[in-house]
Amino acid sequence: MKNQQLSLDLIEAQYNFKNSKNNKNSKSLLIIIGGIELTKKSNAIKKLSELMDPRYLKIKADLPNKIKSNSLIWSPYINDIPKRGEIVTFYGNWYTDLLASTLYENTKKSDYYFKEHLEKINIFENYLKNNNIDIVKVWFDLPWSSIKIRVSDLNLNRAFQRVPNHSWDNFPIEKWKTKDLYNKINFYRKQFTDDWYIIDSQNNKERNLAFANIVLSHLKNTAPPKNASLDYQPAALSPLLTQISKGDIERVQYKKMIKILEHKVAEALRFSSKNVVFAFEGMDAAGKGSSIKRLIKYLDPYEYSIHSISAPENFEKLRPYLWRFWNKHTVNGEINIFDRTWYGRVLVERIECLITEAEWQTAYEEINHYEKQLTETNTIVLKFWLAISKDEQLIRFEKRQKTPQKHFKITDDDWRNRDKWDAYLQAASDMFKYTNTEHAPWHIISNDNKLAARIEILQTILKSLQTEIVCK
Amino acid sequence: MKNQQLSLDLIEAQYNFKNSKNNKNSKSLLIIIGGIELTKKSNAIKKLSELMDPRYLKIKADLPNKIKSNSLIWSPYINDIPKRGEIVTFYGNWYTDLLASTLYENTKKSDYYFKEHLEKINIFENYLKNNNIDIVKVWFDLPWSSIKIRVSDLNLNRAFQRVPNHSWDNFPIEKWKTKDLYNKINFYRKQFTDDWYIIDSQNNKERNLAFANIVLSHLKNTAPPKNASLDYQPAALSPLLTQISKGDIERVQYKKMIKILEHKVAEALRFSSKNVVFAFEGMDAAGKGSSIKRLIKYLDPYEYSIHSISAPENFEKLRPYLWRFWNKHTVNGEINIFDRTWYGRVLVERIECLITEAEWQTAYEEINHYEKQLTETNTIVLKFWLAISKDEQLIRFEKRQKTPQKHFKITDDDWRNRDKWDAYLQAASDMFKYTNTEHAPWHIISNDNKLAARIEILQTILKSLQTEIVCK
Repeated sequence: MKNQQLSLDLIEAQYNFKNSKNNKNSKSLLIIIGGIELTKKSNAIKKLSELMDPRYLKIKADLPNKIKSNSLIWSPYINDIPKRGEIVTFYGNWYTDLLASTLYENTKKSDYYFKEHLEKINIFENYLKNNNIDIVKVWFDLPWSSIKIRVSDLNLNRAFQRVPNHSWDNFPIEKWKTKDLYNKINFYRKQFTDDWYIIDSQNNKERNLAFANIVLSHLKNTAPPKNASLDYQPAALSPLLTQISKGDIERVQYKKMIKILEHKVAEALRFSSKNVVFAFEGMDAAGKGSSIKRLIKYLDPYEYSIHSISAPENFEKLRPYLWRFWNKHTVNGEINIFDRTWYGRVLVERIECLITEAEWQTAYEEINHYEKQLTETNTIVLKFWLAISKDEQLIRFEKRQKTPQKHFKITDDDWRNRDKWDAYLQAASDMFKYTNTEHAPWHIISNDNKLAARIEILQTILKSLQTEIVCK
Repeated sequence: MKNQQLSLDLIEAQYNFKNSKNNKNSKSLLIIIGGIELTKKSNAIKKLSELMDPRYLKIKADLPNKIKSNSLIWSPYINDIPKRGEIVTFYGNWYTDLLASTLYENTKKSDYYFKEHLEKINIFENYLKNNNIDIVKVWFDLPWSSIKIRVSDLNLNRAFQRVPNHSWDNFPIEKWKTKDLYNKINFYRKQFTDDWYIIDSQNNKERNLAFANIVLSHLKNTAPPKNASLDYQPAALSPLLTQISKGDIERVQYKKMIKILEHKVAEALRFSSKNVVFAFEGMDAAGKGSSIKRLIKYLDPYEYSIHSISAPENFEKLRPYLWRFWNKHTVNGEINIFDRTWYGRVLVERIECLITEAEWQTAYEEINHYEKQLTETNTIVLKFWLAISKDEQLIRFEKRQKTPQKHFKITDDDWRNRDKWDAYLQAASDMFKYTNTEHAPWHIISNDNKLAARIEILQTILKSLQTEIVCK
């Protein structure tokens, strides 16, 4: 009877949760499972499935993934990060990956390795929490006395029973006969389980009920969105945006330089041992497309990918805003070029009031963290703002309208954005103030003079890549 | 001037194509690139990018992927299969994979290997073509006399010029000094290029124009959807659907048998060297969910994934209907359980008139081919239809309505589907007639008696897995 009521409550909460997905502050629920061996935590998950509508409770169960130094710690989980209204259980997750990598892979410097990655996980989870994902973390626990009993039961079963088999056949029983591994796991897990639910798993029924009740409470009372932590102060307008240098270069000199630079950049990119991410931003008609064209001139399409970023699709909107970029970084592995980027969050989304003040103000730090994690996984992040004057934009808009095959490059949106020129200047200046980091600095390039700008961009790339080479 | 008009035409055609995406017979365009080395085909692609709006011309460039015996030949490309309205270029593709795998990996039995895979590619491409994807295949060619000249130029450049570098630095020049490789590539490619455009690449400008014009012609004149090749004749209603056996098993006997069977099935699945795909279909309340529950009872969540299939989302609808299943097979790699399946195409989609007659009639063969390709990549496909009588369904519906925590299992849709009982019987009978193949037979299980059905399902699984084990 008690279970029937629980089931009823869970299903009701589950449907309310699911149906809220298009509401403004709707959430998704991510359930992270951890625990000591022999707690039979998998039973608790199956029981939850039975109590709920199993069709709307996704369970992703990965055996521990080895953490790779050149990919983001959450890479194996990207596609299963829940959409708003979804409930997903990660039976394997970044904690199980980290514990396994620490205990079984890394013998030297384990503690340092562990703490370093834990910090990354914290930052990542904070990002999720700030972006409409409620995270429930549950550790299934057993005292050593129970483990001892269960190990000896297992031993007995194995010796005397041939069939039926059970899923513990591959259980490394030898490792659990002494307390060493138990102590080690507890030593590490206690460094992260402060905000976890700890479930005593001695009694199967109590374990299952405790787990189901935790999930229920989160489905019913999802935490409100957090406020911005940033003490936002508008930046002074950057003079690099308001006083565009006209540059100065003669065509003859340009022609000589550009070809050599294009070749050198291609060579530097080709032989770089690091992945490179290019982020191009700027007003409409600032020359993003033609800058990218120069950059790839002597590269083979095998060597790069270009990502043209426009408004997110619906299935992307139901996820944290950085989500749609995570997968793109790993395509081709090497050189990823973004024509517009994740900075849309603090530019168009801010200016068009698609998000709240708290959201775009929080985004600066989130983006900084994100780019930091990219640079920590063997990636150089090169950010360019192409700056043009308002007059020059008008000249280019008019030229586009006069040239039939360039009509597509000029739309009503471009004119509307032009009306918001000052708002964009402010947003860009704020963006430079808050996201011009040491690990991923902004390069602001005056682009009223296209020739000079092209030279400058290529020179900047070359310099950045060469600095990296020297540093190694 | 000529280029300006071409550019204008391409852009216009591109926008029309893009904007048609929600039309009934809208298409996507997949451009497949192949060719001899040194044709500089990458220039032709870049030129096309310049002539069009590059933001809406995706280029996916993979270095050759080694073809794996346990994954579908199109696996590396799934995420980039174009949506309706999209244009995607596969600079690397299944042909380059096959050529590379044939030439560099497989020394013995190359010809057989090649032909076998080519056949798979044909079947797959036919599927795409029948599902709104126009495929343009372009082979960039050079006569041997030109290759000789280009190789010697390359040699000269390398010897005398230190900078600037070019992308041919890693070109295996030694292999191209004799005609062997050239002949070999031609020997193989001539077996598949009958329906390709062959572009002579001696003159760079002509090569680029020829390529752009081919793309233009396809954007303007997309082929009409094909008609069904099947000579459809309605099947006689299967007696297995109309005369449901009541089964006969005593509870005591059931209890004894079920536990042993659940264990044996878990064991057989755990130690199978093959991947297993379970497909569960049946009327509403036929017992799909509870059958799955028994199947996984003694498995750990690490060992399987359950996929509950409901109506496709919008981004899925814009792709061939099997697309959303391709990726799911590889999750967890081993045991994938589908609660409803790709057979929705010939059941609900047919009955609700969501597709044309030609579409569902074509689907039988398409699905057979698909399951064949699964079985050819180390996978067992186990298909179950759970059959209940109309009376039994009513009893179960009423029970669901009386039990509060089962309310969610009964919706208006279920009643509506019940009204179409006879149409579903016909569709199911047709499905058995046309998709009951040797490689993936249907198992029709009478499920009016739940206990007997559970036993039968587990016994069937066990038998299928054991047959496989014996066959090895």
